[in-house]
Amino acid sequence: MRRSHYAARAARITGSVIDASTSIIQARPNDVVRLAMGSPAADFVPVELFGELLAAVAVDGADAFDYGPTEGERSLREELLRCLAGRGEDVAPESLLVTTGGMQGLDLACKLFVDAGDLVVVESPTYTNGAATIAGYEGRIVEVPCDGDGMDVDALAELVAREPAPPKLIYTIPTFQNPSGTTLSPARRERLVELAERWGSLLLEDDPYSWLRFAGNELPSLRALAAGRVPVIAVQTFSKILAPGLRVGWTIAAPEVIARMVDARQAMDTCTNTLQQRLVARFLAGGHLDGHLDALRAEYGRRKVAMQAALGDELAGLDARWTDPEGGFFLWLTLPEGISAAALFTTALEQGVAFIPGPAFSVGGAFPSALRLAFSAEAPERAREGIRRLRRAIDLLEAT
Amino acid sequence: MRRSHYAARAARITGSVIDASTSIIQARPNDVVRLAMGSPAADFVPVELFGELLAAVAVDGADAFDYGPTEGERSLREELLRCLAGRGEDVAPESLLVTTGGMQGLDLACKLFVDAGDLVVVESPTYTNGAATIAGYEGRIVEVPCDGDGMDVDALAELVAREPAPPKLIYTIPTFQNPSGTTLSPARRERLVELAERWGSLLLEDDPYSWLRFAGNELPSLRALAAGRVPVIAVQTFSKILAPGLRVGWTIAAPEVIARMVDARQAMDTCTNTLQQRLVARFLAGGHLDGHLDALRAEYGRRKVAMQAALGDELAGLDARWTDPEGGFFLWLTLPEGISAAALFTTALEQGVAFIPGPAFSVGGAFPSALRLAFSAEAPERAREGIRRLRRAIDLLEAT
Repeated sequence: MRRSHYAARAARITGSVIDASTSIIQARPNDVVRLAMGSPAADFVPVELFGELLAAVAVDGADAFDYGPTEGERSLREELLRCLAGRGEDVAPESLLVTTGGMQGLDLACKLFVDAGDLVVVESPTYTNGAATIAGYEGRIVEVPCDGDGMDVDALAELVAREPAPPKLIYTIPTFQNPSGTTLSPARRERLVELAERWGSLLLEDDPYSWLRFAGNELPSLRALAAGRVPVIAVQTFSKILAPGLRVGWTIAAPEVIARMVDARQAMDTCTNTLQQRLVARFLAGGHLDGHLDALRAEYGRRKVAMQAALGDELAGLDARWTDPEGGFFLWLTLPEGISAAALFTTALEQGVAFIPGPAFSVGGAFPSALRLAFSAEAPERAREGIRRLRRAIDLLEAT
Repeated sequence: MRRSHYAARAARITGSVIDASTSIIQARPNDVVRLAMGSPAADFVPVELFGELLAAVAVDGADAFDYGPTEGERSLREELLRCLAGRGEDVAPESLLVTTGGMQGLDLACKLFVDAGDLVVVESPTYTNGAATIAGYEGRIVEVPCDGDGMDVDALAELVAREPAPPKLIYTIPTFQNPSGTTLSPARRERLVELAERWGSLLLEDDPYSWLRFAGNELPSLRALAAGRVPVIAVQTFSKILAPGLRVGWTIAAPEVIARMVDARQAMDTCTNTLQQRLVARFLAGGHLDGHLDALRAEYGRRKVAMQAALGDELAGLDARWTDPEGGFFLWLTLPEGISAAALFTTALEQGVAFIPGPAFSVGGAFPSALRLAFSAEAPERAREGIRRLRRAIDLLEAT
C-alpha cells in the first residue's frame, strides 16, 4: 500500500493506549489486577437475568435477528423515553437516537459538525477516544485545564479570546469525568452554557456516568441548563450501567440533528444490533433498572472509598494526590514529579497490576506522572492488592 | 441549530430511500409483501439453534457482556480464519478485522482513503449506502455503466481517460451485485485488476453475497486475482448468510490497513458486540455453516426461479426486462419507459407490495423506470402475490 493512498485524516488517526493496554492485559487474564479499563463490576452484571431475557427475546423469532429501524427498536425507544421521563428528563421521541454504544454518538456528532481546522475545545485531561474522534475529523483541538471542579471556564474564556474565531464545538464530560472523576460545579455549568451561547458553540455533553452517583447532590445536565438556548448533543450509554458488550447507547439532540444522524448512520453501521436492543428493552420494561442502579451506586461508592483507603495506606511516604469522585468509575492519581507513568506501566504489569498512564488523556502528552485508576472493575480486596503491586512497581522504578 | 454549524460533509449526507421505505413498510407489517429490503428468508434463520448457542455463550458470564478486542473476539477470528481457509482463502490473522456489519468495513475504508474531491468510481446502478459512505467523506463519485456482465470496464477506461487523475478508489460489488444481481465476468475481473494496477487505484470489493451462489461456476474474488499486485479491501458479512440483526461482518486487507482500521474504530464504536460474536463463533465451531449455506443456496435458487416465473406470467404484455442472477438476493426489473418507479412505489404500497425504486441506486438519479426486487425474504407463493399486486399498481398508474 503506497503511503500516498491514505486520506489526509488518516495521519490524525493513531492507536489508543487504552486499547493497546487491553490487548496486553487480556493476554494474561488471571493474574493482573485490572484498574485500567472502564469495565463495570463483573459480579454486578445480571447475567442470569440477561439469559432469561435473551430466551424471551428469541421467542420473537427471526425478527429478533433482522435489521431494525436505524433510529432504534421501537420497544427500546419507548422504554428509554419512559425511563428518562422518570428521571425528570422530558425527551421528545424525535430527539432520541439509539446508537451502537455511546462512542457512536460522539462519532456522529463530529461527523456532522467538525470540519477540518475547526476549533474544538476539550478538557485536559480528557477521554482518549473522544479526542481521537475529533482528531479523526481533523478538528483543531485546544485543551482547557481542569481542577477539582472540572473544566476551568475562566481559562477557557481566556484561551478562546486569543483565537481568531470561537470554538465550533465544546467537548465535555461534566459529571464524574473520564479520566479524572471530577464533576463540573453548578456555577461553572451555568457559565459554560453562557459562554457557548455567546460564542454560538455547540456543546457535546458526554455523559456515561451520571446515573452512577454515590455521593453529593444530583446536578442538572448541561442539556437541561441550556434548555434550548444552546444546541447540546448529549451522549449516554448502557455500557456503564448495564454492560459494555451490549454496544447499546443513545444520543439526545434537536430533532433536526437526530434526523441527520439517522441519515449518516445508514452509511456507517445501518442499525444497532437488534437482539440486544430488545434485551435492554425487556430489562427496562421488567422494572429492573432502579434496583440495579441502587446496587451499583452502593457498590461503586464502597469501591471508591476502599481504593482511597488503599492508596492512603500503600502509598504512604510518597507525595501522591488523588481525586475524590462522587460517582462513576475512575479516580486520578498524581505521583511525584519525575515518576514516568509510561515507564511505570510496564513495570506495574510485570508486578501484576494494570492502569492507564496519564499522557493517554492529553493530545499534547501532558500528565507524565499521572495515572487513571478504575475502581469499578475489581472488588476492594483485589483492588488493594493492585495498589500494593503498584507501590512495589513504583519502588522498583525509583530504585533503577 | 444554525445551519452554519454543520460541517461541509453534512451537506453530502442525505437520507436513504431504502431506510425511508423500511419505516413505511414496518408501519404496516402484516399485509405488505416485502420485496424491498435485503433481508434473508426468515424461515431459514436458525432461531432455535441461536437460542441454544446464546444460552451456551451466557455461561461465559459477565465476560460475554464486556468490551472485547477491537479487532474481534479471538474465538470468532479463529473460526472465521478456518472457515475462509476451507473456502481456499488463505488469510493471515493480521489481515482480518471483525466489523459491526459489512457496512462498517465500507465506512472504515472510505475514512482511511477518501479525501474531499478524490475521484471514486462506482457501478451504475450501485448500492445506495456504499455510494452514501463515499459521499459522506466528500469523494467525487463517477458512475460507470453496467450490463449483464457487471461493470463495463472499457467504459471505465474511457471515463478515467477524461479525468485529470486516476481514481483513488474503485468501489465494486462484483458478485451478485446489489441492486442488479449481475456478476462481473472473469475477463472483466482480470481487466479491472489490470486497470487498478496501472492507475495505482485501490479496489474496494464489497462482497456480501458470493457464498450464496445457486447457479453457474464459482469465480475468483478480486482479492484473489489481485494477489497483492493491487491493494484490495474486501468487505464481507454474516448479515446475508446468517442474520443481519447480529451486526457481525468482517474485512480483509493488508495488515497495515487493518492496523489503521483498528485504530480508527476505537474512536467509532470501540468493538463489535461481544455476545453475538461469540454466538457466531459457536455456530461456526459447531460445524453448522456448510449445511446452512447448502439449504440457503437451494432455497434462494428456488425463489429466484419462482420470481422470474411470476414476472413472466404477471407482467405479460408489458415490455419489461429482468436480470438473471446466479446467486444473492436481488433481481433488477426494468419497466417500459415512462413508468415512474418513484410514483409506482406509493401506488404499489397501497396495493400491498414494497420494492426499492431504481433512482435510489444512482447518484445522478438514473433508472427512473427500474425496480430492485428482493427474492430473498418472501416465500414463492407470497412473492407471486407481490408481483400480482405490482402489476395491479402498474395498471392503476398507467390508467391515471
